[in-house]
Amino acid sequence: MNGAQSLIRTLVEAGVDVCFANPGTSEMHFVAALDAVPEMRGVLALFEGAVTGAADGYARIAGRPAATLLHLGPGLANGMANLHNARRAHTPVVNVIGDHAIGHKKYDAPLESDIEALTGTLNGWTRRSAHTADVGADAAAAVAAAQDAPGRVANLILPADVSWGEGGKTCPPVPARVPKEVDETTIKQIAEVLRTGESAALLIGGAACRETGLRAASRIAAATGAKPFIEVFPARLERGAGLPNIERLGYLAEHVEYQLQGVKHLIVAGAKAPVSFFAYPGKPSDLVPEGAHVHTLAGLEADVVGALQDLADVVAADTEPVLQEEKRPALPSGPLTPQNWVEVIGALLPDNAIISDEANTSGVLLPAATAGAPRHDVLTLTGGAIGQGIPVATGAAIAAPDRPVINLQSDGSALYTISALWTQAREKSNVTTVLLNNRAYAILRMELQRVGADGSGPKAAELLDLSGPDMDFVKIAEGMGVPARRATTTEELADAFSWALAEPGPHLIDTIVPPLV
Amino acid sequence: MNGAQSLIRTLVEAGVDVCFANPGTSEMHFVAALDAVPEMRGVLALFEGAVTGAADGYARIAGRPAATLLHLGPGLANGMANLHNARRAHTPVVNVIGDHAIGHKKYDAPLESDIEALTGTLNGWTRRSAHTADVGADAAAAVAAAQDAPGRVANLILPADVSWGEGGKTCPPVPARVPKEVDETTIKQIAEVLRTGESAALLIGGAACRETGLRAASRIAAATGAKPFIEVFPARLERGAGLPNIERLGYLAEHVEYQLQGVKHLIVAGAKAPVSFFAYPGKPSDLVPEGAHVHTLAGLEADVVGALQDLADVVAADTEPVLQEEKRPALPSGPLTPQNWVEVIGALLPDNAIISDEANTSGVLLPAATAGAPRHDVLTLTGGAIGQGIPVATGAAIAAPDRPVINLQSDGSALYTISALWTQAREKSNVTTVLLNNRAYAILRMELQRVGADGSGPKAAELLDLSGPDMDFVKIAEGMGVPARRATTTEELADAFSWALAEPGPHLIDTIVPPLV
Repeated sequence: MNGAQSLIRTLVEAGVDVCFANPGTSEMHFVAALDAVPEMRGVLALFEGAVTGAADGYARIAGRPAATLLHLGPGLANGMANLHNARRAHTPVVNVIGDHAIGHKKYDAPLESDIEALTGTLNGWTRRSAHTADVGADAAAAVAAAQDAPGRVANLILPADVSWGEGGKTCPPVPARVPKEVDETTIKQIAEVLRTGESAALLIGGAACRETGLRAASRIAAATGAKPFIEVFPARLERGAGLPNIERLGYLAEHVEYQLQGVKHLIVAGAKAPVSFFAYPGKPSDLVPEGAHVHTLAGLEADVVGALQDLADVVAADTEPVLQEEKRPALPSGPLTPQNWVEVIGALLPDNAIISDEANTSGVLLPAATAGAPRHDVLTLTGGAIGQGIPVATGAAIAAPDRPVINLQSDGSALYTISALWTQAREKSNVTTVLLNNRAYAILRMELQRVGADGSGPKAAELLDLSGPDMDFVKIAEGMGVPARRATTTEELADAFSWALAEPGPHLIDTIVPPLV
Repeated sequence: MNGAQSLIRTLVEAGVDVCFANPGTSEMHFVAALDAVPEMRGVLALFEGAVTGAADGYARIAGRPAATLLHLGPGLANGMANLHNARRAHTPVVNVIGDHAIGHKKYDAPLESDIEALTGTLNGWTRRSAHTADVGADAAAAVAAAQDAPGRVANLILPADVSWGEGGKTCPPVPARVPKEVDETTIKQIAEVLRTGESAALLIGGAACRETGLRAASRIAAATGAKPFIEVFPARLERGAGLPNIERLGYLAEHVEYQLQGVKHLIVAGAKAPVSFFAYPGKPSDLVPEGAHVHTLAGLEADVVGALQDLADVVAADTEPVLQEEKRPALPSGPLTPQNWVEVIGALLPDNAIISDEANTSGVLLPAATAGAPRHDVLTLTGGAIGQGIPVATGAAIAAPDRPVINLQSDGSALYTISALWTQAREKSNVTTVLLNNRAYAILRMELQRVGADGSGPKAAELLDLSGPDMDFVKIAEGMGVPARRATTTEELADAFSWALAEPGPHLIDTIVPPLV
């Protein structure tokens, strides 16, 4: 058994049986070894940003990591932006990064670069396999490291000769670090705070954004009057009829200030205290209201859901959660606007959908329109590095082939990782991409005003404008093997959305919406 | 004057008047400042890999750096692969990397990451502007650093508040480090080696790959019998009728071994002694023939061209260079093959063309077919990080709007940075992309065999296969605003190539060629 075979067998034994890959010469033995281990599924993507984003989306839905296969430092670099998003999402990812053979590195061949410096920026786990006999153990350690609570990016650097060498040994799974239980004292202290009757807010994130956590948070809020909020960009949020409908904190600092106005106690559970996404001249970065106290119920590495349940049992023993009733918007009519396209989605969202949401400014009205739709998961842009939506949808569809995946995708972000459409076509993934085509970096038009950039004129405007030429996403999608239609009215969008959901495989709807700003 | 304005004015004064940009919120004051400095041209690209690749292509042709505008760590990360190629090309590039305001960094907002760790891998120059009053001086230093011989990537990190603050001051240009002159002793020693009559080879690279260097190398070779070679992947190589036609070292180790067989003295000038691109089991990484001596005429930072001229004056005072005669292949007929598409290009290559060559396996027969074509420049994939061809062509066309740019582009590499086509359409760039569509990572099929990866089967083959679905690059290009046609025969390719060259603006030809292997 060579190193590559021992690596793949160990990954499979540890429950990692999908590998999103964009290989090169130094990874050829890994590629060949896929045929020796039938349990491992290799999924080809044509750019590493699609590879890493798919691994992120996969793990958010599957609840366990996928592997990636990346080609030396430049391949890793291409995947870094979506690994940044995965890091912010605390998604477990196991990167296998091929490198030159050990003896080859000193020659500084063209693809040589400092891989560890890149992985270091991910604040995760990195190991370079040094001996073929250790690759199995290294792989088992990588899978465990990725799953250490609350989840992180693990990087296993695999020199080509360590991969092709004989003498590989598989290694049984290694246990990961489990979430820390929150002690009773903390629960009691937070309960005391809530009993003061002073204005409080409860901000939840991470694992708390799924049913059990949401129900506990809702009970606490209902019993104590604390306002519940969800972190701005949750990795995976369960929503829809029958679940508590808890408001997300806003992206805009002004919005958060409004949401937290008057709050004296901010209780955080699996989330960090809110900060502004960017700094703005003369405005605060820290969005905790002045004079308010921040109380940590559960840190990111803690058992957030257990802590919320424990707290609920103390302060809300007899209180039921407030559940969203089933309620959909009526199908609108007429030309598409930023207001009405979300109603089409809300009206037609299928059961048990997964939404990969990179709609950005086009999607600000989405939460209201889908709150009472059938239960669904929402995967958001956790790290702010755009180009995440199409790959995350691609990975989610691999993780849950029986669920419809809806990718709400802004045009500006789409071009970063557009080739993930091809992977959807190859894998016959059930993804419907609703491409919100406003022909602008609309968010930047808004931000240009918000940062107070005076004196901007036509040259600045041109850098935020995606028309001239207009992109035709029907052609782009068809060029990558994904059937597509264009919608300029609500009726066309509703028709196209129904068509896309009814047919198996991926589809794209080039949805022409005017910019919000 | 704010920091951003002082930065842009200083860049313009130092001769940097094109900025390839993909901005975000933290760069809005830079964007607004473009309107205050009309001399600076902003060119929007929809992905940072297109931004950095275009800056590389621009500088290779313009002979001076462009600026880039990148959005924090993730934006830089997206541009890293083509910066890796620029580093290997010794291309001067001035990256302006926006970052959070200084006081905002401690909040670890979603886009926060370690920018210096990323720039550190480029082995170039990095500075973080700390005060608005210093931004001008920092910018002047960055332009000089980028142009320090032989050229490198300079990174100026610009915190948002340093950019928006008032009190910016422009700074006059700072001189860059010029190439070191090679001393007479070295010239004499190398001349002695050449006079021994022992088998010698002269390997040139960098600045020596243009007319003056080529002529000197050719004279030396003609007078002494040394075999002249050009480094495997030159940043910019002048070729065609009237110039010496010097063979490039091969990509494959086997090829280089053949080329250097029997050589006792390898003289290098502006190039490193040859090493294998990758390691292969049981094969050497060092491609210098056993027992041969390596003599450095001129290191990478030296005045390579001057050294070659000095050496030629010593050993070849009365010898003329051997010049390539004008000679084109006849236009072939019939279905396209890896053999005949290059003949179409050779037969029809226009005067004074720039070739951005990322044809990979499809292009192995190109040099012979174009050797006697009209004089042209060839820009190659210097660092092995694919996705370079379309952006480099885009930047080259901005640098030389009067020259026809021909991008010979393999399909596998094209998807990495395909959105650069949109920038070509927006800028009305005169680029003809000949998309060599063999529906495979053909080079990896070859490499799978070369590395001796036994036991590979259908799963491995699938990861190297780009059919299923076939990509339709006509639709993809048209979707990005670039007129396109498909060619499956030599006649169709010739027709389409002539059509593309005759019309202004960018064009793409989806050229269906069978894989070489």
